[in-house]
Amino acid sequence: MMRLLSALVIYLTLTLGAIAQLAVHATGDLGVVIERTTGSVLIVDQSDMDVLARVEGFGDLSHASAVFSPDERYAFIFGRDGGLTKLDLVTQTIAGRVMQAGNSIGGAISDDGLLVAVSNYEPGGVRVFDAETLDLVADFPTGSKTIGLVDAPGGRFVFSMWDSGETWIADMSGAAPEVTKITGMGVNPYDALITGDGRRYIVGLFGEDGLSTLDLWSETPTVQRVLPGYGHGEEPLPVYKMPHLEGWALAGDRFALPAVGRHEVLWLDAQRLTELGRTKTHGQPVFAVARPDGRHVWVNYAHPNNDTIEVIEAASGEILHTLKPGPAVLHMEFSARGHRVWVSVRDANRIDIYDTHTFEKIGEIPAQTPSGIFFTARAHRIGL
Amino acid sequence: MMRLLSALVIYLTLTLGAIAQLAVHATGDLGVVIERTTGSVLIVDQSDMDVLARVEGFGDLSHASAVFSPDERYAFIFGRDGGLTKLDLVTQTIAGRVMQAGNSIGGAISDDGLLVAVSNYEPGGVRVFDAETLDLVADFPTGSKTIGLVDAPGGRFVFSMWDSGETWIADMSGAAPEVTKITGMGVNPYDALITGDGRRYIVGLFGEDGLSTLDLWSETPTVQRVLPGYGHGEEPLPVYKMPHLEGWALAGDRFALPAVGRHEVLWLDAQRLTELGRTKTHGQPVFAVARPDGRHVWVNYAHPNNDTIEVIEAASGEILHTLKPGPAVLHMEFSARGHRVWVSVRDANRIDIYDTHTFEKIGEIPAQTPSGIFFTARAHRIGL
Repeated sequence: MMRLLSALVIYLTLTLGAIAQLAVHATGDLGVVIERTTGSVLIVDQSDMDVLARVEGFGDLSHASAVFSPDERYAFIFGRDGGLTKLDLVTQTIAGRVMQAGNSIGGAISDDGLLVAVSNYEPGGVRVFDAETLDLVADFPTGSKTIGLVDAPGGRFVFSMWDSGETWIADMSGAAPEVTKITGMGVNPYDALITGDGRRYIVGLFGEDGLSTLDLWSETPTVQRVLPGYGHGEEPLPVYKMPHLEGWALAGDRFALPAVGRHEVLWLDAQRLTELGRTKTHGQPVFAVARPDGRHVWVNYAHPNNDTIEVIEAASGEILHTLKPGPAVLHMEFSARGHRVWVSVRDANRIDIYDTHTFEKIGEIPAQTPSGIFFTARAHRIGL
Repeated sequence: MMRLLSALVIYLTLTLGAIAQLAVHATGDLGVVIERTTGSVLIVDQSDMDVLARVEGFGDLSHASAVFSPDERYAFIFGRDGGLTKLDLVTQTIAGRVMQAGNSIGGAISDDGLLVAVSNYEPGGVRVFDAETLDLVADFPTGSKTIGLVDAPGGRFVFSMWDSGETWIADMSGAAPEVTKITGMGVNPYDALITGDGRRYIVGLFGEDGLSTLDLWSETPTVQRVLPGYGHGEEPLPVYKMPHLEGWALAGDRFALPAVGRHEVLWLDAQRLTELGRTKTHGQPVFAVARPDGRHVWVNYAHPNNDTIEVIEAASGEILHTLKPGPAVLHMEFSARGHRVWVSVRDANRIDIYDTHTFEKIGEIPAQTPSGIFFTARAHRIGL
């Protein structure tokens, strides 16, 4: 009996300890790191610059992204293979997983946090799931590879079709979804973004020179072309990696835009969407991300220049600083108020952490082929 | 022995349950409500529209505000009586409390979350505390009532002096604080704000018509006057309540500014800080707060018109909707992505919750003389 009692006390003490350990991790400064070749995800603590757990079983994460529930407890991980996985950051376990398509390319969460949507290549379209249960709530087949899925205020999702050049706005706020279809966005939309205020949806075009935009505040949004023929008359370089638009940087009164197939960052007037100037860069930009105060823009590059980051001052367009973190810099994520940035260095199996004011490296953590880094503060932003 | 064993199991099960209960509350969608006459604070859950706990012992909360730690676990509550109280949202208990002055007026937390600052009337100045321990780290006596304290990027605090008309910038990022003093801000600064990008510090003046602003991106910030004499030649009304500047609304390309002593909201060009127009309102505005997408601005009013909220469309300046929540509407707080707003109705002892797209009331919770409402998403914003 005494032995039983002792065993019980030890068991319960260990369990208590484990649960108490979980309880002390508030979720506001957590994040996830995608480990692309192992299909695993690291749960990280920003303040401690530390790894809390590695969770496995996410499938193909070769092109993965994440969004967060409003309480910053759950990350929804979108895998390349159509897997949608709900990760519990508190218990550090997978809370749910569905294979919802054959080949997918990113997702979004509604502004009320109740719905998670995924855009798919195969079969082409968008599927919407209950964020609690991962039950299918709505299905929007589009007959096309579907890209550029974002959430917009008012319970809406917006997405675009590679093949047909359409953009659809799905309003999920009523009893049944209402879909508004806009045609003629341009040839082969390949990615899109929504501005931080949820007003403008901007589509990058692979098949023509320029971009298209919609004003989502309009009752009847119409297509407006931006930067038509911005590369006209020049010989384009081969494109090593299509730049991501999601990270379009709003820096004060201007956007920083990674140019397609050029060693340039373009600067646009944020209101008129006209070109203000260009900055010559070290390589073909992949992400141009503004520090949250908009004063600096950090840029990484496509192969073979992907060991480098340049920091550009937004007001002057001048390169302030150059960093060489190591081989294959894939992603950068700022702390919510911008005092630090985390950088994934894939081929060094490492995350580097920098002070964004001094540019000093202040920490590093090991990771297996890290790509995307996503902090929980995204839960509180429109379109992220 | 069996009885002992049974008692132990019951005890441990209850304890386990209590701790597990704590563990399941992620902190991203929590908030606090100031109960001004009872010196208590409600911890609320935004998603569930529910009260998790009432915590007592905060002293005089007749003019109180709050900031949050980066992990969204702790709220720092600034009381009118100089009390600085650290509230643990996970354990729902007071984690620390210091009486740091005789009469204080708000505080801020540094961008790295390590320092909490409080501005004081008596003795006049700013005191800076370790956010972990609440130990005093730095003391800036100013010889004046001190107001308008905000955090700025780069580990800085900015604050202004009622008596001397100065603004000080305290840079806490080095081994010792460095203070830059700017004189001639104007007669009797009464409140200030920092823009969401941390660039502009704008000071409201009680002793003269107009405002002053500093560009914090400048190496040597100089005073720029804004809206000089904007009420010149008109007979001012008696001022029932000085409007708050902290909630200055950036709505797209413009700011909404509550006019002092007038039934008006002023619209300013966000870049040039020049007047674009005015909206006639139901009363003297106290807070003009932009929905996070910037499309609408919600305005509440001073006595005797404080039973009313008006919703103004930013682009047109037109009043879209009027609400009458009840007696003494003191504060409004939006969910991070703007789909809901919480409204404190002090004399009805109630918080009302509205859908911001339909304007329908979707919930209410009881509270004792509620005033300020603060959601944890503020942890991730510059200057909040």
